Parts: sequence; structure tokens; C-alpha cells
Amino acid sequence: MRELFIGNKNYSTWSMRPWLVLKFFQIEFKEQLIPFDDFHPDQAFKQRILKVNPTGKVPALVDDGLLIWDSLAICEYLAESFPEKHLWPSDRVLRARARSISAEMHSGFTTLRNLCGMNIEADLSEVGQKLWQEHAALRADVARIEQIWSERPDDNGFLCGQFSIADAFYAPVVMRFISFKLPISKKTQQYMDLMLSVPAIQTWIVEAKQEQQFVAIDEPYRTSR
Amino acid sequence: MRELFIGNKNYSTWSMRPWLVLKFFQIEFKEQLIPFDDFHPDQAFKQRILKVNPTGKVPALVDDGLLIWDSLAICEYLAESFPEKHLWPSDRVLRARARSISAEMHSGFTTLRNLCGMNIEADLSEVGQKLWQEHAALRADVARIEQIWSERPDDNGFLCGQFSIADAFYAPVVMRFISFKLPISKKTQQYMDLMLSVPAIQTWIVEAKQEQQFVAIDEPYRTSR
Repeated sequence: MRELFIGNKNYSTWSMRPWLVLKFFQIEFKEQLIPFDDFHPDQAFKQRILKVNPTGKVPALVDDGLLIWDSLAICEYLAESFPEKHLWPSDRVLRARARSISAEMHSGFTTLRNLCGMNIEADLSEVGQKLWQEHAALRADVARIEQIWSERPDDNGFLCGQFSIADAFYAPVVMRFISFKLPISKKTQQYMDLMLSVPAIQTWIVEAKQEQQFVAIDEPYRTSR
Repeated sequence: MRELFIGNKNYSTWSMRPWLVLKFFQIEFKEQLIPFDDFHPDQAFKQRILKVNPTGKVPALVDDGLLIWDSLAICEYLAESFPEKHLWPSDRVLRARARSISAEMHSGFTTLRNLCGMNIEADLSEVGQKLWQEHAALRADVARIEQIWSERPDDNGFLCGQFSIADAFYAPVVMRFISFKLPISKKTQQYMDLMLSVPAIQTWIVEAKQEQQFVAIDEPYRTSR
């Protein structure tokens, strides 16, 4: 049995990535959603996840008893387990690029992450406008992402040709761009529209909006709902 | 031709990882060291690296014209290019673990990273003592690393059996623990001693100490030398 432990779909960017990969490539799994709280050691989230994963974090994949944690490690593990599905591009050059941009997202873009946390159900366009004016580092992060997205091999295609792990890694950015309504180019909008047409992404969004769980720690801009 | 672009050996943790992998596994490459400065766009570092890598960062590998950036993507690319060398453990379970802990290092341990920047030639033991007392988050990062290191399959071995990419990812931590003289367990010291016996690591350290280039941006604790 394959189980993926994730956090709230509305907030958890790290969870979204391997979940999308599993869904898109039709790899069977059981979803185990552990709702976020304040992450105190005596609260439910940490107590539940620590029984599975010693890092105390989501996502975590448990595949017939074998634990793999971290979104990128899980995706590499899945790519290796299902070579016939080409979770990375089958072309060597595109695969090298897909790994580079995924790793760049995995360790970088800290300003975008810190200022514009994923919050799928929220309209944070006013906050976004303010942040955009105030933070040059945010504008630099977005510029680099727009550069990456603009270098797609085909203007009507995904980041490295067919949908791959790389697109799953940038899917949460699409969500951030929408919630915060950051000013983006037409070409960027094109890629976002393509991503929004992917059924697995549509499902994640619908389920995120259905959650209706307000988690204070993930809501720096809204004080209540 | 294979070229690896790196930063100062004394400071650049990200550079150290793929460099160690290339050296340890005897994969031929040409080292291209671009000395760090203040990273202003009009200074030499950014001007030189941007000609090679649009992220403006090291490390970057250029393999017969193909660019791969980010330490983890480079290591995955090399692992795939040289399957017979087993850059990841050949055992599936150990390989899943190696990928998990490498990815955990790649995106995590931000407090250790921010407070205890790698500085191989410096003795920062007094600073280390102070930081240790003041920052619970630093103690938590170190505790998690000690946990990972204590779970080696063999007490006298590397993180996942033979030396692998995972050890290269934790090598800079060994350097930080030494410079800042953080209080660690006997078992941790054992792993550090093993790592310090690896010729590739010894070479990196010798060359780091030879650099003698004081880079202000990487020296929050020493005002001069």
C-alpha cells in the first residue's frame, strides 16, 4: 500500500507537489490529510505526523512500509519506481533542465515563499499590490520565475515539454500568483491557464476551497474569516 | 568537457557538494572557481557567473555545453550519467533514505545555515558557544542532524553505507560543527572523524585554507583578518 501524508490543501505547497505527481500519472495511493494547527509538540499535527515521519513534516510517502520524506525525494523515488511513466522528461537535455528548475524551486525563492504563502481560497490582491511595491526581492523572485516559464520548449506546452515533476513543483506558484494577483506577463498567464486546465490541479483547488479551515499561523494577512 | 563552476572553498557549501561527488567518484572535470565578492551586479562574480548560469549562482555544471545548476540537480544528473559508480546507494531502501536526507538538507536547516555559515579556516568557537546558548532553533537543527547521523546502517560507516551523495550533502555541516565547535555527541564525532579521513574532503579543506580571501559578506563574526 502507498500512503501520502499531506497537510491542508489550501496552504501546503510542499504537499501539493507529490500529490499532483501521483494524481497526474495515475499512481494509486491513499491520501492521509493531517490538518495543520499551531505545530506545537502537544497538538494533533505533530503528534500524528511524528508517528510516521521523524522530521515532523509533510509530505511523507509510506510505500509498503518504506518511508520517504521531502517533496523532491518523493518525486525522485516515484520517477525511479515508474520509469515507464516518465515523471521526468524522457529527453536527457530536458530532464537535466527539469531537475535544475525543480531544485532551484526546492531551495530558493524564499522571499516569494515568506511573503506570499499559498492560500488558495483567499483573495489577497490588495496585499499583493502593496507587497509588490514594497519588496524589490519579491519582484526579483517573480522575474526569475517568469524567465523560467518563458523558456518552455513550446509556448503552448509545459515547462519541459509534457507535464512533469517540474510543473508540479511550480504549481503552488501559480496558486500564489492568483491569490496575490501579482502583475505578470501575457506569456506567464498562458502557462498559468494551461496549468489550470490540468484535472489534477483542478481537483486540488476544489478540495482546497472545500476545506474552510482557518489556520492562524498560515494567515498573516487575514485576521479572521 | 565537463566544467564545474564553484565559489570560494572556504565559504561555499553549495559548491562543496558536487565538487566532492566528482572528486570522490573520480569523474573528470575542470574546476572553475569564481571568487566571491559583494554580489553586486556590476562586480566580477555576478558578471562572470551570469555568462554561464542565468540564476547567477554557483555551483553550475557545464557538460559538453549542457548546463545543469543547483547542487542537488547536478548530483542527480551525475548519478544518472554514471550508473556504474553508484553515486546513490545501490540498495533501493538505502537509496530512498539517502535521497530523503539529502533533500531535507537541501531545503532545510535554515537556522544552522544562517547563524553558522561555513568558514573552514576560522576558529569561531566562542561565537558558537554564544549562539548555542541563545538559539533554541539552532539546538533543534543540530539535534535533528545528530539523529540522522546516528541512524547510519553501520556505526563505522557513512550515512547510507558506502560514501554517497548524502555524505557530500552533509560534509559542509561537518565543517560548520568544527569551526563553531558546537557541542556534539561521541557518535557524531565518530562520523565527523570518518568524513575527515576522506581524501576528497581533506583536499577541499587544504585548498580552502590556502585561499586566504576575506569576504566581508561571509564574515558576520570576524571584522578583519
